[in-house]
Amino acid sequence: MTKAKMSIIGAGSAVFSMSLVRDICLKDSLKGSTVCFMDIDKERLDVVHSLAERYAKERNADLKLEKTLERNEALQDADFVINTALIGGHTNVEKERECGEKHGYYRGINFASYFHQLKLMLDVAEDIEDACPDAWLIQASNPVFDGCTLMTREIRDKVIGLCHGHYGAYQIARVIGIDPDEVTFQAPGVNHCIWMTDFRYQGKDAYPLIDEWIETKAEDYWKTWDGSPTDAQMSPAAVSLYRMFGLFPIGDTPRFAGAWWHHVDLETKKRWFNKYGGFDSEVGWSYYLEGLAKRIDRMVELSRDSSASISSEFKPVPSREQHIPIIDALVNDNEGKFQVNVPNRGAIEGINDDVVVEVPGIVNGQGVQPIHVGALPKHLTLHILRTHIIPMELGLEAFKTGDRNILLNRILLDHRTRSYEQAQEVMRAILTLPFNEDLRKHFGG
Amino acid sequence: MTKAKMSIIGAGSAVFSMSLVRDICLKDSLKGSTVCFMDIDKERLDVVHSLAERYAKERNADLKLEKTLERNEALQDADFVINTALIGGHTNVEKERECGEKHGYYRGINFASYFHQLKLMLDVAEDIEDACPDAWLIQASNPVFDGCTLMTREIRDKVIGLCHGHYGAYQIARVIGIDPDEVTFQAPGVNHCIWMTDFRYQGKDAYPLIDEWIETKAEDYWKTWDGSPTDAQMSPAAVSLYRMFGLFPIGDTPRFAGAWWHHVDLETKKRWFNKYGGFDSEVGWSYYLEGLAKRIDRMVELSRDSSASISSEFKPVPSREQHIPIIDALVNDNEGKFQVNVPNRGAIEGINDDVVVEVPGIVNGQGVQPIHVGALPKHLTLHILRTHIIPMELGLEAFKTGDRNILLNRILLDHRTRSYEQAQEVMRAILTLPFNEDLRKHFGG
Repeated sequence: MTKAKMSIIGAGSAVFSMSLVRDICLKDSLKGSTVCFMDIDKERLDVVHSLAERYAKERNADLKLEKTLERNEALQDADFVINTALIGGHTNVEKERECGEKHGYYRGINFASYFHQLKLMLDVAEDIEDACPDAWLIQASNPVFDGCTLMTREIRDKVIGLCHGHYGAYQIARVIGIDPDEVTFQAPGVNHCIWMTDFRYQGKDAYPLIDEWIETKAEDYWKTWDGSPTDAQMSPAAVSLYRMFGLFPIGDTPRFAGAWWHHVDLETKKRWFNKYGGFDSEVGWSYYLEGLAKRIDRMVELSRDSSASISSEFKPVPSREQHIPIIDALVNDNEGKFQVNVPNRGAIEGINDDVVVEVPGIVNGQGVQPIHVGALPKHLTLHILRTHIIPMELGLEAFKTGDRNILLNRILLDHRTRSYEQAQEVMRAILTLPFNEDLRKHFGG
Repeated sequence: MTKAKMSIIGAGSAVFSMSLVRDICLKDSLKGSTVCFMDIDKERLDVVHSLAERYAKERNADLKLEKTLERNEALQDADFVINTALIGGHTNVEKERECGEKHGYYRGINFASYFHQLKLMLDVAEDIEDACPDAWLIQASNPVFDGCTLMTREIRDKVIGLCHGHYGAYQIARVIGIDPDEVTFQAPGVNHCIWMTDFRYQGKDAYPLIDEWIETKAEDYWKTWDGSPTDAQMSPAAVSLYRMFGLFPIGDTPRFAGAWWHHVDLETKKRWFNKYGGFDSEVGWSYYLEGLAKRIDRMVELSRDSSASISSEFKPVPSREQHIPIIDALVNDNEGKFQVNVPNRGAIEGINDDVVVEVPGIVNGQGVQPIHVGALPKHLTLHILRTHIIPMELGLEAFKTGDRNILLNRILLDHRTRSYEQAQEVMRAILTLPFNEDLRKHFGG
């Protein structure tokens, strides 16, 4: 049992922070630890801190809870830094989207939430090197793929990117009617583009069960499906990608597999995802944002109602997030296998060593050791290179050099672009948005 | 001085064959050599053979000329095999194009001239291994990039791909008004996608002269330009690519740089290339095909007119083709530096060793040794990977596996594709063309 200090950057993400606190309270081996909440939004920070305090008290947990508006204060003596911050929040993302749509880009283009995030990640990683160089940095906010590749190349090795998309494999089990608790799987790739290389039910290959479901039940499922707008795990898009590449796409992969033809417009999205057009349509995304806003409102409401029981809101059951189990594995040598985003170093053949991949890794007192999963099918590897790794490399190169031509090239090769002029114009328009002033300068505009 | 046997596969390409014969006649060091013409078209073969016989006689050349319809006969004891064959000729290419255009693909899609060519190249390379394993194979017909990569990976090392696109550098000199004879340059890349890393006039960096021309003369040049429809070397497209990637694109590169936005329709092509829309527009391409047909007619006419002087048609001046100088370098150790397509093996950083690149190479009695040219700008390397190397790898993988999904993926990622259904339909239509019967079977249709 070791006391650890965990600092959460962007702790105003209340649900994320509270889920983390709950997970810590449930881990006896982390008793006596400190959680330091840091956010630049004082109001949200206070809400989270007070809820966490009350929760810990209700649970009678041995846990020290701190809060600060200063990143460097949070980093002092930290053993773990969890970065969940999204600069500019969703507001800027939506403003950029609107601007992109005006120029003919359905669902828009993101610069700010990409380049500002990369900058923030680098800054945090650098500050850690100064303040607490032995700490592990756990990167939770996006872009995990690009950001972790950048940080591990430029600043430090002790970075783990985390996502929860891989749990989509259990959703497959639920949909095809087998017990998720009896399922094992492996789904390597790069973040948001992972593919199930192994799927077992009670120890036996369960891919034939997927095939049977597709053959006999998929059509009915798609007709009568009534789930969450954000669920795309067993969508026609996912099945089509499975047919194309031979492995089932997991989690966020059906959304982000580089298949532009699933995303042409709302009608097309409805056909490939669900009646809402999936997570990323205007319908699905509004649902997501509304849910987010509701959860924040609920947190504020809870924090104001001093008679409310926080632990009846956050039932004392471990979340499925990997953060705390990984921290426990690292500080207490409680070894486990996790889905981690770390530099490839040969884990997936055909991908450069210094590209961060998402693979199963063994985590224990030694650190994180990715498991060698071998090669993906060649067609799939080439597709991932073309639609994910090279665009990531272009993004990082644009970020580092400020070369406007790389931005332009990225937009030109976007399948939605219809002409050279359109690409130039949307680029100019996005760089002229007030919150992108720094980017406009960086890219010589 | 060594007598060599050179066999030309597809020797019915009369201009190519006659140019080769002229170059041999001009090389004293190749006296006594044998040229064996092979083609499956007896009529064209006879024309070429009789013209070559007359030419050699007129020039009083010590040269043995053979002809055969059988490839294996041609390969017996060959020291060099020059493959210039195009299966199905231009007729099939144009039929496929027409089919593609019906489905909304301006200027069409090529399957036959890709997969049939790969098959032929492999067959020739395999036959060489049996008949004359010490021979050098010089690949002249396209796709040089894909085909040479395939052959060097699968069959044999002694393959050199040749093209003449790199001479575009001299066209730059002519246009900007400096003496091409006083110019040196280096332009590595992959075939049809090469970029000038060095350009000197009288030993000094001449890139500033290009910049000055762009600044002060380009607009006028484009307004008053009156050259060949196939000349794109100093087109707005080329200058735009130079601005985007920082190196000037050479030869066929402005046509094939992966910039779909230059090729949307004839109007767009006119703006980016020339008043004919460049080499690959319906206008430029017709001009090219008509020229080809005229040259063939002229050959036939010459062959029928026994009083005509062949050497006044083919003036005894060396062509700029590299074939014969390279053969001379190999058999007589007359060392030279040439532009060759050979496996990379580190010559260009950031490209896999087993990808055939186009680089300067030293050729002498030892063989071909590519010159290490280092790294291209990162943005450019990534662009070449994305638009040339990965599509090549997908093409070879489709060829080897017969996986229809790879074909479909290739078409889907074509910027002209507007929907999944369109891609499926054009694929089906092209595979249903009579001369693609074998491909339809190969791809499980």
